[in-house]
Amino acid sequence: MTQDIHVNLGELIRTFGGELIGGADVVISGVATLASAGPNDIAFLSNAKYRSLLPDTRAGAVILGVQDQDATPLPRIITSNPYAYMAKVSAFFHPVARPEPGIDSTAVVEATATIASDASIGPHAVIAKHASIGARVVIGAGCYVGADVEIGADTFLYPGVVIYAACKLGARGILHSGVVIGADGFGIAQEHGHWHKVPQVGRVVIGDDVEIGANTTVDRGALEDTVIEDGVKLDNQIQVAHNVRIGAHTAIAGCVGIAGSTTIGKHCMIGGAAMILGHLSIADGTTISTGTMVTKTIDEPGTYTAMWAAMPHREWLKGVAQLRRMDELMRRLRELEEKIQALERKSS
Amino acid sequence: MTQDIHVNLGELIRTFGGELIGGADVVISGVATLASAGPNDIAFLSNAKYRSLLPDTRAGAVILGVQDQDATPLPRIITSNPYAYMAKVSAFFHPVARPEPGIDSTAVVEATATIASDASIGPHAVIAKHASIGARVVIGAGCYVGADVEIGADTFLYPGVVIYAACKLGARGILHSGVVIGADGFGIAQEHGHWHKVPQVGRVVIGDDVEIGANTTVDRGALEDTVIEDGVKLDNQIQVAHNVRIGAHTAIAGCVGIAGSTTIGKHCMIGGAAMILGHLSIADGTTISTGTMVTKTIDEPGTYTAMWAAMPHREWLKGVAQLRRMDELMRRLRELEEKIQALERKSS
Amino acid sequence: MTQDIHVNLGELIRTFGGELIGGADVVISGVATLASAGPNDIAFLSNAKYRSLLPDTRAGAVILGVQDQDATPLPRIITSNPYAYMAKVSAFFHPVARPEPGIDSTAVVEATATIASDASIGPHAVIAKHASIGARVVIGAGCYVGADVEIGADTFLYPGVVIYAACKLGARGILHSGVVIGADGFGIAQEHGHWHKVPQVGRVVIGDDVEIGANTTVDRGALEDTVIEDGVKLDNQIQVAHNVRIGAHTAIAGCVGIAGSTTIGKHCMIGGAAMILGHLSIADGTTISTGTMVTKTIDEPGTYTAMWAAMPHREWLKGVAQLRRMDELMRRLRELEEKIQALERKSS
Repeated sequence: MTQDIHVNLGELIRTFGGELIGGADVVISGVATLASAGPNDIAFLSNAKYRSLLPDTRAGAVILGVQDQDATPLPRIITSNPYAYMAKVSAFFHPVARPEPGIDSTAVVEATATIASDASIGPHAVIAKHASIGARVVIGAGCYVGADVEIGADTFLYPGVVIYAACKLGARGILHSGVVIGADGFGIAQEHGHWHKVPQVGRVVIGDDVEIGANTTVDRGALEDTVIEDGVKLDNQIQVAHNVRIGAHTAIAGCVGIAGSTTIGKHCMIGGAAMILGHLSIADGTTISTGTMVTKTIDEPGTYTAMWAAMPHREWLKGVAQLRRMDELMRRLRELEEKIQALERKSS
Repeated sequence: MTQDIHVNLGELIRTFGGELIGGADVVISGVATLASAGPNDIAFLSNAKYRSLLPDTRAGAVILGVQDQDATPLPRIITSNPYAYMAKVSAFFHPVARPEPGIDSTAVVEATATIASDASIGPHAVIAKHASIGARVVIGAGCYVGADVEIGADTFLYPGVVIYAACKLGARGILHSGVVIGADGFGIAQEHGHWHKVPQVGRVVIGDDVEIGANTTVDRGALEDTVIEDGVKLDNQIQVAHNVRIGAHTAIAGCVGIAGSTTIGKHCMIGGAAMILGHLSIADGTTISTGTMVTKTIDEPGTYTAMWAAMPHREWLKGVAQLRRMDELMRRLRELEEKIQALERKSS
Repeated sequence: MTQDIHVNLGELIRTFGGELIGGADVVISGVATLASAGPNDIAFLSNAKYRSLLPDTRAGAVILGVQDQDATPLPRIITSNPYAYMAKVSAFFHPVARPEPGIDSTAVVEATATIASDASIGPHAVIAKHASIGARVVIGAGCYVGADVEIGADTFLYPGVVIYAACKLGARGILHSGVVIGADGFGIAQEHGHWHKVPQVGRVVIGDDVEIGANTTVDRGALEDTVIEDGVKLDNQIQVAHNVRIGAHTAIAGCVGIAGSTTIGKHCMIGGAAMILGHLSIADGTTISTGTMVTKTIDEPGTYTAMWAAMPHREWLKGVAQLRRMDELMRRLRELEEKIQALERKSS
């Protein structure tokens, strides 16, 4: 993971914009945190929590927001969005390494599958019948691509991804190891105490520029499709049930569960371990706090929360006990109100 | 996933029962939702939430509950359980596609393993020593079946399932990709600040007709077995710890965790993301609400809940703050009670 | 999983310590629970919940704590820590079976990888360029070991583990199936409503004696490393985000999520399904209760909790409704206080 890319601050500004204060000739060869940067690194400040590290940083330069532009005498790039700026500079220093094109001799590729000549199919990968693999796609070692699957150009599957039959992935996607796309949704119908399986015959359809974290699962639809729109970012170990739709450019942190037939709007942000019940919808631009359960449709964007913070065990028990005393409390309050009424009557 | 099965409503009734109103000759070639059905589809109404779609459906026929039998003039099948009826009709239109029998040339099968002649072992699958694979079983690409594992007839493992040594699967099971059966339970014993591993030498024993969703894990027992009884349905990303027993025909939604040595009864329903602590038992027929933590044995069936619903962030903070003021509130209430007693004494 | 190891109680005492009461010549060939033990088994009592099983056990001997030393007339070993003692005796009876050394003919090993001569590389495993596999390491079937990965001596990867490039594993580790080490952390920067990927160029560095449960994911660092120190034990389906540090000998139960850049101290215990927010730190020796969300740095060790226990659905709804009436309650309390003040003034 070493690289040998060098650039001076003047060139960075010309490529990525921003305002330079000092040091156009300072040469940078990497991005680092304020705490660990050396003289050839550019550091950045995007979370106020780390501002106290600024005076002691050994960085050669720093990326700062407008409000912090005078917070250091170091050469610095001022931008309205230091974190996005850092992302772009870091991507410049760390171009993604793609394996050589070609089909590994141990891969099993059905004759009816279509593989772009510049795609890369890793060792022990399996490409089933009539699958279609686009230009420059990377299929990692041991991946399984089911029958009739379509994968758009430049999409990258890390080792061990499974795509069930008939699902569709857009261009420029990234799927991490352990991701399972298109397994059957949890459709079961009870009769006389037993469960009948409801066939899951929809697909999963995923747009362009979607990233999906390790061990996340997206189930195929029961009758219609499960849909993930363009630009969606899913972290690890998320469960997306059948017939869910996730709107474009929504980001969802790890361990979230989304129950069936729910529609999540565009540009939403959903905190880790949140749970969204089924058959409801969430407005575009909504934020759901970490660990929060959503039980009803949300029509108005805003931030929604239901989250209890850890406290010392004894205090928590006391709080819980008091909640259980609410009944008694209401009763005592009512009695007082009656007694006071009686006293007021007497004294008037 | 196309199919070419056609049937008229009269034949459906003869096969699956129910009462037909109108249109015995209407030919149906698929099942669809009310919203998307066309004239060759049969739609269904099983969730009252979707009743408003009935007047506008373009379906050729509809499956309805008795209470809705006059809710549309369309040809319709009346049944006490529209969802189960739909499941059966959909299964009729979508028979499961099983791969050809035989052992793929890239599979690694130990000489001492027993493979039914009509079983199908996919590419890159590994079958370890003394494993036994029953009639018509499908082992998907890249699956690992450990030593001494037994798999009953007609069970279907999607690509990438791992079964550790000595575990036992019943007949007609379905295990989705990423499922891990029989990994070591979390048995650790602390001594002088370090952890000793407790060997996990029990097995996982799974009954007939069990379906297990993608990336769900079921740990082997510490000394005795972890047991999943017949007809249990597990959704995705569920964690079943060592020595758990799940009773027959219980259904568990996604992201649930069940801690060690807990026994869950038969015919229970457990909502998504529920958490069940260890060493307790849950009565047959119990329902646990979504996101609910169970901390004690449940002897009486019923519905059990502990779940906070998301609300606008500011309202939530206010509610939490008030709970923290319970102490103060109780104190003020006590003071009032004393003062009133004093006043009452005076005025009497 | 049968074994043929026999030992008498006198020998056990000489090997593992403890005080023997009676029966030095009693021969034992296995460990079992009180309920299932037979005359050749040694049982144990480490959880008071099971004390009632002691009178009826058919065990040949029992491991007991000092406080229980007279609780049975059976031959017994008295120790300050019966559970750890049982762990050691059970490990004695169940030595780990390791496959034969050597590289399976179906494994794909890059020429530049270094494999210890006594390591075992399973079928369909893939070892990428410049990876280094230590003495007696076991790489299970279908595992993927990325470029430049280092794996210390005696570490055991069960089938289907994925290690991304450049990560480092210590000695004597155990990684269960479905574990993904080193996938990209969830680093995304928003700009004009779209997300830019922040390259994740740190590694995952794991110490010695670490066990990681099935389908657990540990993301690589964004710029610096994600670190898991020596002796850490992680259960199944845990999500460890980028740049987290987990201190030595900490144990974490299943389904826990730890958000980015959080530092967890040494010797902590974290209950199942707990969630720890990002950019905070937890003191050495802290216990977090099951299902608890940690939202702030914890400086003082102790037990921290935020967990609601399931109750009958109707009671729960009533409790929640009352919490929503806190506003009204406070208002009524204030009115009473004013009225009483007025009455007091009058009556004085």
